[in-house]
Amino acid sequence: MRNNYNNLKTLLINAGELLKSKFNGSFNYSVKSKFDLVSNIDNEIENYIITELKKYDSTISIFSEEIGTIDNNSDYKWIIDPLDGTANFIFGVPYFNISVALEYKNEIIEGYVYNPINNEFYFSDNEKKKSFLNENEIKVSDTNKINETLVVFGFSANYNNIKKYYEKWNILFKNCKKGIGLLSPALNICNVARGRIDCFLDFGSNMEGHAAGSLILKNAGGKILNYDFTNWDHKTKGIIATNGKIDMKIIEKV
Amino acid sequence: MRNNYNNLKTLLINAGELLKSKFNGSFNYSVKSKFDLVSNIDNEIENYIITELKKYDSTISIFSEEIGTIDNNSDYKWIIDPLDGTANFIFGVPYFNISVALEYKNEIIEGYVYNPINNEFYFSDNEKKKSFLNENEIKVSDTNKINETLVVFGFSANYNNIKKYYEKWNILFKNCKKGIGLLSPALNICNVARGRIDCFLDFGSNMEGHAAGSLILKNAGGKILNYDFTNWDHKTKGIIATNGKIDMKIIEKV
Repeated sequence: MRNNYNNLKTLLINAGELLKSKFNGSFNYSVKSKFDLVSNIDNEIENYIITELKKYDSTISIFSEEIGTIDNNSDYKWIIDPLDGTANFIFGVPYFNISVALEYKNEIIEGYVYNPINNEFYFSDNEKKKSFLNENEIKVSDTNKINETLVVFGFSANYNNIKKYYEKWNILFKNCKKGIGLLSPALNICNVARGRIDCFLDFGSNMEGHAAGSLILKNAGGKILNYDFTNWDHKTKGIIATNGKIDMKIIEKV
Repeated sequence: MRNNYNNLKTLLINAGELLKSKFNGSFNYSVKSKFDLVSNIDNEIENYIITELKKYDSTISIFSEEIGTIDNNSDYKWIIDPLDGTANFIFGVPYFNISVALEYKNEIIEGYVYNPINNEFYFSDNEKKKSFLNENEIKVSDTNKINETLVVFGFSANYNNIKKYYEKWNILFKNCKKGIGLLSPALNICNVARGRIDCFLDFGSNMEGHAAGSLILKNAGGKILNYDFTNWDHKTKGIIATNGKIDMKIIEKV
């Protein structure tokens, strides 16, 4: 059941080519057409991935963002996000990805995150307990001081949402080295895993967007909590993803 | 003096290769090293561009972000931003660019913006009065209703800055179709020119970051104003960049 690496890599690279060709196309549409287009692409990528996964092993259950659950009464389940970061895709920002995770008895045992624009292919499984970017092992950063921290918050330009982050993470907001608001949870988590950034905080991320990334971060030495500081459960909404060296509990405003 | 297109394209593609190789490298450094690295890259790209531009024509004056002005007592001046979007570069977001503009008697007459990660090469000059992305002509969107508008604000996670945008653009913030905060002014302006988004508002953009983009937007049918709604002067800080169909004055909160 393991060692899906080569199959998944081929599958994601093919799906990525499709995504890339759509991203680089003309985009001079009405706003409704832009959102329809992305929704069509979402469905197209999803169909492709599910069809291919079924060819490979038709006994595994599937949860995917658009279609929901295909229950094959299996302990194994693929969790699929065909396009994480749709707003970036629409706005012309090449920061989006395809995410696939394999769940076994409620635990993530394989994670794949792929940005087709710059060919970043992230992978981890719980046999090797290591994480890789394009075959190279990755590790979290060593940053442990708040004034050296690079932070990503999961906000767009919604003022009420920004205020919620600001109220909860007041000390971090004011004292971090640099913070930005960024959509695309899976890539944000992988950038923590890779040591580019030190933490990512998002109250709105969904299972399909953060499941694969969470395993990649854990096996790169990072730490993940639910947004309310309880033990990580990938089925809940929201995430606190850190390099494991910054104590988020201490710098939370209580 | 015109028809610099092929020379500039070669120059920017070469500089872009350098930038791309640095972006894709390992990034598991201390935060100080990350900022030092970007500053070194900035200087390296700048040196390369200036050296090549001088070979091509040594009589033109130059203004570049890091070194400032090289005054050759010419009516022509190259304005260079070797790396627009440094925060994105550091955070692992492939949304940054190299910008070069040619100024003649205080007016921008050629503009070049290049994102080396996805090979987006934007160009305009005031002879053809058209704008191009990879040789294809581009045009702004037709959106004129506020509730259909895709907006980019030039903010990171600095709460006081976000509040300033929110206060000035309150109606837009609340009623636009979707807004996000994004760094990299030149690409944001080009995404308006290309019709991906409908407006970009930034109180902090600098001449070197917005000069090239402003010509590209103008010749794609867009409109540019200074951030205080006065007539566009690329030497001032800040920008209001729109598709020319949305009346920003009306939706400003007064």
